[in-house]
Amino acid sequence: MLDKSIQIGIVGLGLIGGSIAKNLSKKGYKVYANDLNEESLKNALNEKKIDGLLEDLDLKNPFILIFTIPVLSIKKELIRNNELLSKALCITDGLSVKNPLKNEIEGKRINTENFILSHPIAGSEKSGYANSEENLFKEKLVVITKLSGTSQTTEDICNDFWSLLGARTIQINSEDHDKYFAKTSHLPHLIAFALMSMISKSKGTKKEIFTGGGLKDFTRIASSDPKMWEDIFMSNQTNMLEVIKSFKSELDQLEKLIKENDSEKLNQFITSSKEFRDSLI
Amino acid sequence: MLDKSIQIGIVGLGLIGGSIAKNLSKKGYKVYANDLNEESLKNALNEKKIDGLLEDLDLKNPFILIFTIPVLSIKKELIRNNELLSKALCITDGLSVKNPLKNEIEGKRINTENFILSHPIAGSEKSGYANSEENLFKEKLVVITKLSGTSQTTEDICNDFWSLLGARTIQINSEDHDKYFAKTSHLPHLIAFALMSMISKSKGTKKEIFTGGGLKDFTRIASSDPKMWEDIFMSNQTNMLEVIKSFKSELDQLEKLIKENDSEKLNQFITSSKEFRDSLI
Repeated sequence: MLDKSIQIGIVGLGLIGGSIAKNLSKKGYKVYANDLNEESLKNALNEKKIDGLLEDLDLKNPFILIFTIPVLSIKKELIRNNELLSKALCITDGLSVKNPLKNEIEGKRINTENFILSHPIAGSEKSGYANSEENLFKEKLVVITKLSGTSQTTEDICNDFWSLLGARTIQINSEDHDKYFAKTSHLPHLIAFALMSMISKSKGTKKEIFTGGGLKDFTRIASSDPKMWEDIFMSNQTNMLEVIKSFKSELDQLEKLIKENDSEKLNQFITSSKEFRDSLI
Repeated sequence: MLDKSIQIGIVGLGLIGGSIAKNLSKKGYKVYANDLNEESLKNALNEKKIDGLLEDLDLKNPFILIFTIPVLSIKKELIRNNELLSKALCITDGLSVKNPLKNEIEGKRINTENFILSHPIAGSEKSGYANSEENLFKEKLVVITKLSGTSQTTEDICNDFWSLLGARTIQINSEDHDKYFAKTSHLPHLIAFALMSMISKSKGTKKEIFTGGGLKDFTRIASSDPKMWEDIFMSNQTNMLEVIKSFKSELDQLEKLIKENDSEKLNQFITSSKEFRDSLI
């Protein structure tokens, strides 16, 4: 259990950061945050979800610092908050791509003892402080990635932090993390954006049919925050190019079976996919 | 309003046929059905959702006949139920592809006066009688397609039939229907099958992460009935090949932007897709 005297510093008060603030302020922790969006900060202050700005952190007493920002803002924010890095009890993040972040931190900092990476699997197509909610992390999974120098104490604090928020943690190394999420999260988002772009180019899209069919659920993720996804695709570049290639090869196979009227193999393909999907639920 | 004396004949007691039976038997209509699955028939009889088999229809009195079967079974079922076709007050269907069906019927039958096509947008990844439910069509949309000879009376009966089940109807011609659903329904299913196939080939898929992330919703449609989708892809072949081509070209564009580190154009692509998607909700 985290001692109530530990302060919480949040860099980026969006969906993830805002949800942390709402949960921990209610539990009695002192929460400080900054964000480029002044309205979010003002609202959070008015609603008493944060106790002040990041500059109000009492640096003489222990604090956890968490970066919940778009992936490619991390470099800039690490520099901007440099003073806090060595003083923090524990530093973590909520970013969706880990390997470039790990390399960035390990390349720039000699001591990574108090640093550990986190990826809460709690995002949705909704974004921003306005959509944040106290119970966002309840029964969710958080993937933890250690840096080369991460201490056991830091790991324990990070686990306690997420557990306090209602989540469970599992550890995956940064390379496996990025490969895994390229396939299971980043590619599906890319597909949804591609499909929406394609449909937007054709005439006569009927809103009422769109809303009625399965397309609504299928393309929900295409409503996600563009800046967040631009950063994810770019920073996970190598894995993205690999999974796009693999996915296109699956499409090519299906295209061939349809073109050649190969009902039998087409049925086998669909049946295997269905069985695999059903086995995961 | 349909007169209670009108009997309902259902060819194929799956998700759609079963849901019609459950709704209309409760409203007091006499419902008769057949299905290749004897257990479904037995259950429906035991549960009093149907009053008998299709052969028990009283051909001297009016009945509506509806074909709710996989697309490519229609030829065989039209032949098998040939005797009923000229005697039915109104014949319709629940198939997801219209143009080949329209051509088949108009090519084989001189009189299409009592025939009209229906596509209820009420399917899901669930299939079979066991998943059918009384209120499946409530507030759903049904796309109606007239044949060359469809009479006004037939059209009126068909509208009353769906309205009785709680649905609204709109009319679209068969060619537009098949083009439209190729993009907005058939392609998304194909994509989901392709994605699941790709993920199944890679090692170490973690069930707990799969369940936690957005992939679960995104790939729900990959749990759909294989035979149904084999038939849809094959019978809507020309449109499928066209939409796969268009979709791959969108993927190629995204791949190029990621490869060339063109963040600005990537952001524009994602933003347009998101805005279009949001405009449809």
